[in-house]
Amino acid sequence: MNKLPVNYELSHRDGKARAGVITTPHGDIKTPVFMPVGTQATVKTMNPEEVRELGADIILGNTYHLFLRPGDDVVAKFGGLHKFMNWSHPILTDSGGFQVFSLGAIRKIKEEGVYFRSHIDGSKRFISPEKSIDIQNNLGADIVMLFDECPPGQSSREYLIPSIERTTRWAKRCVTAHKRPDDQGLFAIVQGGIYEDLRDKSMNELMEMDESFSGYAIGGLAVGEPREDMYRILDYITPKLPEHKPRYLMGVGEPLDMLEAVEHGVDMMDCVQPSRIGRHGTTFTKYGRLVIKNAKYSLDPRPLDEDCDCYVCKNYTRGYIRHLFKANEMLGQKLATYHNLYFLIKMMNGARDAIIDKRFIAFKEEFIGNYTQGKDSEWIIPQRIED
Amino acid sequence: MNKLPVNYELSHRDGKARAGVITTPHGDIKTPVFMPVGTQATVKTMNPEEVRELGADIILGNTYHLFLRPGDDVVAKFGGLHKFMNWSHPILTDSGGFQVFSLGAIRKIKEEGVYFRSHIDGSKRFISPEKSIDIQNNLGADIVMLFDECPPGQSSREYLIPSIERTTRWAKRCVTAHKRPDDQGLFAIVQGGIYEDLRDKSMNELMEMDESFSGYAIGGLAVGEPREDMYRILDYITPKLPEHKPRYLMGVGEPLDMLEAVEHGVDMMDCVQPSRIGRHGTTFTKYGRLVIKNAKYSLDPRPLDEDCDCYVCKNYTRGYIRHLFKANEMLGQKLATYHNLYFLIKMMNGARDAIIDKRFIAFKEEFIGNYTQGKDSEWIIPQRIED
Repeated sequence: MNKLPVNYELSHRDGKARAGVITTPHGDIKTPVFMPVGTQATVKTMNPEEVRELGADIILGNTYHLFLRPGDDVVAKFGGLHKFMNWSHPILTDSGGFQVFSLGAIRKIKEEGVYFRSHIDGSKRFISPEKSIDIQNNLGADIVMLFDECPPGQSSREYLIPSIERTTRWAKRCVTAHKRPDDQGLFAIVQGGIYEDLRDKSMNELMEMDESFSGYAIGGLAVGEPREDMYRILDYITPKLPEHKPRYLMGVGEPLDMLEAVEHGVDMMDCVQPSRIGRHGTTFTKYGRLVIKNAKYSLDPRPLDEDCDCYVCKNYTRGYIRHLFKANEMLGQKLATYHNLYFLIKMMNGARDAIIDKRFIAFKEEFIGNYTQGKDSEWIIPQRIED
Repeated sequence: MNKLPVNYELSHRDGKARAGVITTPHGDIKTPVFMPVGTQATVKTMNPEEVRELGADIILGNTYHLFLRPGDDVVAKFGGLHKFMNWSHPILTDSGGFQVFSLGAIRKIKEEGVYFRSHIDGSKRFISPEKSIDIQNNLGADIVMLFDECPPGQSSREYLIPSIERTTRWAKRCVTAHKRPDDQGLFAIVQGGIYEDLRDKSMNELMEMDESFSGYAIGGLAVGEPREDMYRILDYITPKLPEHKPRYLMGVGEPLDMLEAVEHGVDMMDCVQPSRIGRHGTTFTKYGRLVIKNAKYSLDPRPLDEDCDCYVCKNYTRGYIRHLFKANEMLGQKLATYHNLYFLIKMMNGARDAIIDKRFIAFKEEFIGNYTQGKDSEWIIPQRIED
């Protein structure tokens, strides 16, 4: 009884790490995969052709943002998000849950949904599980997400237990409300903070609706908790998720965290971090982060990353890109974004190849050994952030 | 004795209008031509490949800006402006004269040159004819310009006469200072405001150095004078310029003015206007200007210009581009810039074809008839502006 529109084929294992392919109505996604974020129907600074050229199989859109502007009804009139933004490949839309809690001025969390004020114009708004799914049905992404309650990082057990139970009730309502189950795969989101037993509770409750879910996300991580806690929970819960469905860790985009997540069996990740730090002039290199505005790069004829073969690294020097940033030229932000997205996608492709060849741990250790050499490098605390 | 590095072949005439080809060390330029402006070693918002793709044969760089940032010595260390910015086609650099007068806080205009303060950091700077040529030799453009004194628009005869004479003396110093006459073509700049006899005076003085000049620019127009005056002077002076050298009208980028200039025998034009208005959300269409932020476009499924076959018009709707502008997404500015540059280059290609077919006046009249229909359209007073 495989009539879900989004499916996962697990092709290789190396320890807990997995390589596979997700099939969707708009094409296949090789996993493990990094998904660039296109919050407002555009991956900031980039043409969609460039996003494809740098290797993206799938991008994200955001329900909260697109609901507020231009409105999901507007997007629907243009034939859905794919057509609206000129991206014919897979799209995943977040449910808006995270943004309602992180961006909206919250009025009330009630059983029926969340009342909040728009961060754009202060207008009163309401998103319920039904509304989130309705918006996502209008947007028409290949993968849509449950509307969950997103508890603050490091919430107590006392806070989390009723929150998990509400998220489960909301999940049922989302399943019922979903009007396009034949062409939009619905993903569940497992919550439970940093408590193993609460992760089990959330997962087990959601698993009762397993036949309705095309995949499982791990929410409530990278929300400010210590890195050890994030890794401990990943290690605990990821392998328990259904083997033949994709596993999506939300909001993680720091290279070393991504490799750790892959090692634990995560298949999908997204984060605005690579594009955001790029727009502020920080770029990834094999040997760690590079802050391009530093004066020492003004005459540097090397590419951003000497080990990189992307469009940016083939055509532009550090000196030129530094100039663009100093002169406030948009092209600088674009080139840094392009390179950073390419870097993570290439890293994930490398991880995939390593899993297939059963040498993932060696790949990871070599990557980390190089990456942590860089003088500019800092290993940032994982933190799910807004674009 | 044709050893100039930049040459012009006049191939067709239609009245005073001319079609031809300019040859340069980095390739040929079909004329009449519109030249996109890349002030700070980038055409704002655009990848260089896109600038080429939309049809640009040549772009501008700016001596004043690049002298201040990153420094022409820096550009020289990267092998010159072509390599620095990843543009292998022809480049023209303005001499900095116009910017010294319009942007720098002027300290003193002296016979030796101009003392001013940088608009970036207030530092004291000096540009002389020799310094301007030295900077331009470092930048390495195919076409370099004389360092001229740029009098304010509508200057009196009394102001202009000594100014013209100084510009002639500076021209001699530029010719003498030019260290790369074999691979950089030097253009003279005819001044004289809105007075026919002063235009003659300036031209005649410069013509004494004709063997050193690869072309002639018309300066001191589009600086705030009434349109009638600009057209009267264009009509008067353009046909008097040497027939077998290109004629460049500086700072004009309004479509109707451009066609008027072509009619009078101008071969080259530049202006930041198409990219600047694009970044602010105004785009050209066959039927005049379109202000994309207007609410009426929010559900408009048409391209910016229904008559256009550019990348932007083939792939994006007015509704989407409006959304990008409302959401402050850079892609909106880029798409509008791309389309506007394409529009002017396509218009100039159309003018060229019409000249070759001896139907330029009909082409111009049809263009104007359409262009002035638009409800959003305004015919802006020509004004040379900064990027």
